[in-house]
Amino acid sequence: MSASSRHAAASDVWARIEALPRPTLGELFSKERDGGEGGDEPAGEDRVAMLSGRIEWGADETAGGVLFDWSKTHLDSVLLDNFEALAEAHDFTGRRDALLGGERVNVTENRAATHTAERGIGKDAHVEEAAALRDRMRLLVQAVHQGALGEVKHLIHIGIGGSALGPALAVDALARDFPLVDVHVVSNIDGVALEAAFAACDPATTMIAVASKTFTTIETMTNANSALTWLKDNGVADPSGRVVALTASPEKAVEWGVDETRVLPFMESVGGRYSLWSSIGFPVAIAVGWDDFEAMLAGAQAVDRHFAETQGRANLPLRAAFADRYYARIRGCQTRAVFAYDERLGLFPDYLQQLEMESNGKRVTSDMQPVDEPTAPITWGGVGTDAQHAVFQLLHQGTHLIPVDFIASVAPGDALDPAHHRILLMNCFAQGAALMKGDPGNDPARHFPGDRPSATMLADDLDAAALGALIAFHEHRTFANAVLMGINPFDQFGVELGKSMAKAIERGGERFDASTEALLEAAGMKA
Amino acid sequence: MSASSRHAAASDVWARIEALPRPTLGELFSKERDGGEGGDEPAGEDRVAMLSGRIEWGADETAGGVLFDWSKTHLDSVLLDNFEALAEAHDFTGRRDALLGGERVNVTENRAATHTAERGIGKDAHVEEAAALRDRMRLLVQAVHQGALGEVKHLIHIGIGGSALGPALAVDALARDFPLVDVHVVSNIDGVALEAAFAACDPATTMIAVASKTFTTIETMTNANSALTWLKDNGVADPSGRVVALTASPEKAVEWGVDETRVLPFMESVGGRYSLWSSIGFPVAIAVGWDDFEAMLAGAQAVDRHFAETQGRANLPLRAAFADRYYARIRGCQTRAVFAYDERLGLFPDYLQQLEMESNGKRVTSDMQPVDEPTAPITWGGVGTDAQHAVFQLLHQGTHLIPVDFIASVAPGDALDPAHHRILLMNCFAQGAALMKGDPGNDPARHFPGDRPSATMLADDLDAAALGALIAFHEHRTFANAVLMGINPFDQFGVELGKSMAKAIERGGERFDASTEALLEAAGMKA
Repeated sequence: MSASSRHAAASDVWARIEALPRPTLGELFSKERDGGEGGDEPAGEDRVAMLSGRIEWGADETAGGVLFDWSKTHLDSVLLDNFEALAEAHDFTGRRDALLGGERVNVTENRAATHTAERGIGKDAHVEEAAALRDRMRLLVQAVHQGALGEVKHLIHIGIGGSALGPALAVDALARDFPLVDVHVVSNIDGVALEAAFAACDPATTMIAVASKTFTTIETMTNANSALTWLKDNGVADPSGRVVALTASPEKAVEWGVDETRVLPFMESVGGRYSLWSSIGFPVAIAVGWDDFEAMLAGAQAVDRHFAETQGRANLPLRAAFADRYYARIRGCQTRAVFAYDERLGLFPDYLQQLEMESNGKRVTSDMQPVDEPTAPITWGGVGTDAQHAVFQLLHQGTHLIPVDFIASVAPGDALDPAHHRILLMNCFAQGAALMKGDPGNDPARHFPGDRPSATMLADDLDAAALGALIAFHEHRTFANAVLMGINPFDQFGVELGKSMAKAIERGGERFDASTEALLEAAGMKA
Repeated sequence: MSASSRHAAASDVWARIEALPRPTLGELFSKERDGGEGGDEPAGEDRVAMLSGRIEWGADETAGGVLFDWSKTHLDSVLLDNFEALAEAHDFTGRRDALLGGERVNVTENRAATHTAERGIGKDAHVEEAAALRDRMRLLVQAVHQGALGEVKHLIHIGIGGSALGPALAVDALARDFPLVDVHVVSNIDGVALEAAFAACDPATTMIAVASKTFTTIETMTNANSALTWLKDNGVADPSGRVVALTASPEKAVEWGVDETRVLPFMESVGGRYSLWSSIGFPVAIAVGWDDFEAMLAGAQAVDRHFAETQGRANLPLRAAFADRYYARIRGCQTRAVFAYDERLGLFPDYLQQLEMESNGKRVTSDMQPVDEPTAPITWGGVGTDAQHAVFQLLHQGTHLIPVDFIASVAPGDALDPAHHRILLMNCFAQGAALMKGDPGNDPARHFPGDRPSATMLADDLDAAALGALIAFHEHRTFANAVLMGINPFDQFGVELGKSMAKAIERGGERFDASTEALLEAAGMKA
């Protein structure tokens, strides 16, 4: 099919979807639908069976899985039929196979997107190159753990965006109890961030990881230089000898002064926001150990296999994308919220923000046509139960419809009174139920309209494999959304203009708008 | 004016606003508007003068201020005229004076909202009661600092929502360097949160603050009980003797076992999300010392005075609300983003989320009529420069219009190479300029539409007074938004339904929807 006939086919599907009746969640769940008005539409338990699925991995004591329950969304058989047609119009199967086959799916930058190759799924050459680089990383990680590089008690990991969010999330989620090395992730150029890391580390036993795909990122290089100064000012004889570089530009790292034995490259075709699996994951492996790092990759690989092998509505990331597109385009939802009912996933909403908004916050299709629909919604969220006491007022009674994702773990992360985890899960499930059910209330201020959708992801246990699976699920969900819009999720030209204007301010000599001029003046930054 | 004639007058104004031409920001800033098509509409520098203002406080070395620049929004003279008419239709002056005069503005709960009385602005009786309670708090804070309660090196502050977000924000913003006492704020019922605090504290020198307005909040009381168990299990003879209670229900705290000398009450009329200024601020005073706590109140009071004494468009929180309502209602913006270009304000977006979304995420007016407009947008955001590398792609090139607030401080918070703070501020200003200006680009993927609004708040220095001022500014901005919608920002019935469903799950015996039943089953929570 040509691009224009694909577009026409997609438009037809959307016109059909637009015209469909819109039963409430209560109606969709109602027993009366069985054989009644809903025809052969399942209700109640059958609906849950239709819209829930598990992805599993491992065997015996390493076995685990995550349940993905999308039944409390407005998806029904008719919508699923239509969205499968939409996926076909956009050649979803072809696009997916191109991604996983290592084709140059990142068309604007003319390269593949090889994050799944880091997990062992992809074109042979990519998988082999990733494995070789990973082996090199493993040797350095194990050398550090064995003391071959001297005593290392602390690691300051310096990176920003894709070079920081993944490591920060995974270290926070997996290394709270007894990390092998105490890891601090520093991203902001604001020196306050780096000073907080300095205050928590002993320079005599601190290693520095500098993570930058290009090894030119100004925030990261400024922080790296200040970290070296700190080591030197505190009596470390050879600060550069303490640095590990994580980069797709190894020659730049060597030029900057890192010995090549401590440069861990990753492939140019691994995008920043998809790079946790590559050498950017070094601080994770340092904190949790190599086996757990591998377990994280294995959990992700289980999702890759599901995504590669499952067709149509049974494909869980694709099904999630069906709901995402439905709410964005038909119900006008500009946002989607995610609430992790697990303290260890406090950074998950931040991670997803980048993954989804940077990938799909676009305005042109892959073939450079302006999009004719809303692209990525704003991903926001927080941690339950905290968020219940902060923002759920608006979820329940506000005027905006917000599809909500809940994430939780059956096994507790704590060893306190089991009441803690039991109450945590009860609250998670109760919120999804309450959003759907609503309540007529005794007076208008106590009225809850209900019919508000949510999805729930329930891991058996939030271990390294489950974290890997949850992240990979969202990578593929993001990709599936991009396919359904016909956009390229792997470039990010939108970050360039601000950078170039910051450079213009630094150079001086240019006149900006009157507001910017006044702000520079107020900050004492006019010559 | 009756409610219905107020509503009719407001509708008329909105109809006029809806019909107005919509010049771009570039057009509004263009020199050609001077005396040209724009009539006497100011352009360029004059426009900045019209839409920027400072709020200041103190004298000599305690002097400071914050600049509020709203010029890069679409507000112009005509819109300001119309919004002043809208404010009049909603009796803004009367509502504001009722708030600050201690009237029962929280109509559904039939009480006043006395957070400004905590700062010395309000009805005499409220101000006096707040001062007396504050004096009691000061004595206890000073006693702790003087060692009268034994050695206190750590404070675990247990509270959730309004009892946690303010203390967490203020401690993180103001007590990074050399806190008098090391404070950990624990909110989540997930035991992982409490365990992290335990790991960082020595039980022999740890005090526990239990903060709950009602002293019945299940998350807080569960955490408090586990904290006492931890003290006891670690050899503390009299765990209850280590507890300070911060509450509007002092009798409940005494009943629970806190000696009344260590119960710090606050007034029932102080709402949870407005309670940082009351005894809920105890951990802040413990960390930063009493003088800085008072400075925070003084900064807030300066904003209270400005808000009380300034009329119409010159009233900065009201002016911000004009823009907020314009984007929400006319431009269809479901969100507003805030990016603090200061690591110390990392929790500010979370704080604002609660303040704005819980206050104004409503669906009925104060007189119990359904609202006929979108209420509070979703507040989201993050920390610059990090966010530039994560979500700014969508801000610049996505399909959703998102009004953005930037917050920064002229004085650096760090003592590293000045390049850190200089680059930080340059990036902040460059982003606002770039969002407005846009760029035609060399190809469609590099096209930036521009015309995207932002506001900038620039503090001279992010000290305690500036933090107090920034928070109070947002309290009044939130209130002004509520007045312009005719809603009550001081109740939060929307959090009740989820709570009651969680209790129903705990009680057992009730049958829920099939999805909730399946989740309970999967979590092993069915009897």
